[in-house]
Amino acid sequence: MNRQQLFEQIQKKKSFLCVGLDTDIQKLPKHLLDEEDPMFSFNQEIIDATAEFSVAYKPNLAFYESLGSNGIISLEKTVQYIKSNYPDIFIIADAKRGDIGNTSNLYARAFFENQDFDAVTVAPYMGEDSVKPFMTYDGKWVILLALTSNKGAFDFQFLKDEETGNQLFESVLKTSQNWGTVENLMYVVGATKAEKLKEIREIVPEHFLLVPGVGAQGGSLQEVAKNGMNSQCGLLVNSSRGIIYASNGNDFSEKAGVAAKEVQQEMAKLLSEANLL
Amino acid sequence: MNRQQLFEQIQKKKSFLCVGLDTDIQKLPKHLLDEEDPMFSFNQEIIDATAEFSVAYKPNLAFYESLGSNGIISLEKTVQYIKSNYPDIFIIADAKRGDIGNTSNLYARAFFENQDFDAVTVAPYMGEDSVKPFMTYDGKWVILLALTSNKGAFDFQFLKDEETGNQLFESVLKTSQNWGTVENLMYVVGATKAEKLKEIREIVPEHFLLVPGVGAQGGSLQEVAKNGMNSQCGLLVNSSRGIIYASNGNDFSEKAGVAAKEVQQEMAKLLSEANLL
Repeated sequence: MNRQQLFEQIQKKKSFLCVGLDTDIQKLPKHLLDEEDPMFSFNQEIIDATAEFSVAYKPNLAFYESLGSNGIISLEKTVQYIKSNYPDIFIIADAKRGDIGNTSNLYARAFFENQDFDAVTVAPYMGEDSVKPFMTYDGKWVILLALTSNKGAFDFQFLKDEETGNQLFESVLKTSQNWGTVENLMYVVGATKAEKLKEIREIVPEHFLLVPGVGAQGGSLQEVAKNGMNSQCGLLVNSSRGIIYASNGNDFSEKAGVAAKEVQQEMAKLLSEANLL
Repeated sequence: MNRQQLFEQIQKKKSFLCVGLDTDIQKLPKHLLDEEDPMFSFNQEIIDATAEFSVAYKPNLAFYESLGSNGIISLEKTVQYIKSNYPDIFIIADAKRGDIGNTSNLYARAFFENQDFDAVTVAPYMGEDSVKPFMTYDGKWVILLALTSNKGAFDFQFLKDEETGNQLFESVLKTSQNWGTVENLMYVVGATKAEKLKEIREIVPEHFLLVPGVGAQGGSLQEVAKNGMNSQCGLLVNSSRGIIYASNGNDFSEKAGVAAKEVQQEMAKLLSEANLL
């Protein structure tokens, strides 16, 4: 999916919501545990209930890997289910990979050939050759960690380079622009650092940003939109727990749909105020 | 496995060799492709041929993930095979994970509960809460990326912090010492940066270092030992392609054994020169 197509989906659905499929087997509604593949059954119902309000899904790989090969099967089925039933939805492998070139090539094969993800999150620590292999697939995207939403972000991401005066996350934003384009590179910027979005937009005015941390982690959607929106929206705002665990009873998918719709309606308002609809 | 036990294995085998199981389905000897699980068959033969000369194995997760759930099954079988047949060998998941605390918890569950790895490689970009969940398992280890062996290491790892004068990899070494101990934390330091090992040993004199990049990537074992060895050896030197692809004919495992033995003999000499045997 290219940038224009993504923007068209955002306009069509009046939403820039990404639903994080952080599907934890230990948190599933009890009645699903009798199903053959409880994680997939859960995802299927969540997807059907929220697809109308979302432009992207983001399975968090850790949750699937924690169940070994069975979890990977649930993940593969989930991606296939989205692609078959909702082909215009963007699917992000939240994997935070990053390794030497020959290894990153293999990860790219895993996510873009073996499975049909549209994007994968990548950690920048190992530099250019760890990131570029993900950019060789037409219509596929790298989403590079820049400024993350967690407390540990303060350990290294704000260290200021003596020579340029750039903080590490700024160096990542600036250097990586030589590796890719606005058509194959997005950045992760946590909503809990929304006040930084304005500065970040000066460095990367056109790139899409994936923004986690709204909801459970405490970030504000209004703040994110005010500081981060560009002429093609340029934002995918992720919500995981606030939607998929809105209820853990029999009505879990219905409540997830309600929660997704609420976010979508707020997003519609923000898109409209920005004259993007 | 604790540090003392690891050192005892090094002394017993006169080796600090880690064999990297970067098992690429596209590079397997042709005759294995008829087997039910070619990757596992390959690993099994490689392990049997090299276990005498190695103290550790390091499956590179990307190679298994590139085959989806089937690859994960091959990986699970490989780990079980090592644990059953060579219980004193240290097994590293070369995964380079790192995510917010609640997600890193799940990765830890994947590697240390669902599978029986002894250690996992972790990327430091997201800071403390992304690393610590891996340290809560007794006898299990984090191996944190400090200075990697690839060209991209120069993009960010040498940026110098204005305030402390530390380069990023030095900040990682110093800050992370508050998170773990010499009993649950090692560091990745590439052999291609062997001249840096002396400086690194000043910061982390006692920690074990996992050193990739000897062989195919061009690092020298003598240089690594000279600059990096400590009173408990303190080194695990990885070789992947130079051993597992020493031949791609019917004699692949025999040749892998010969290649591993050659490295082991050089290591025995270095250990002896350092009075560690």
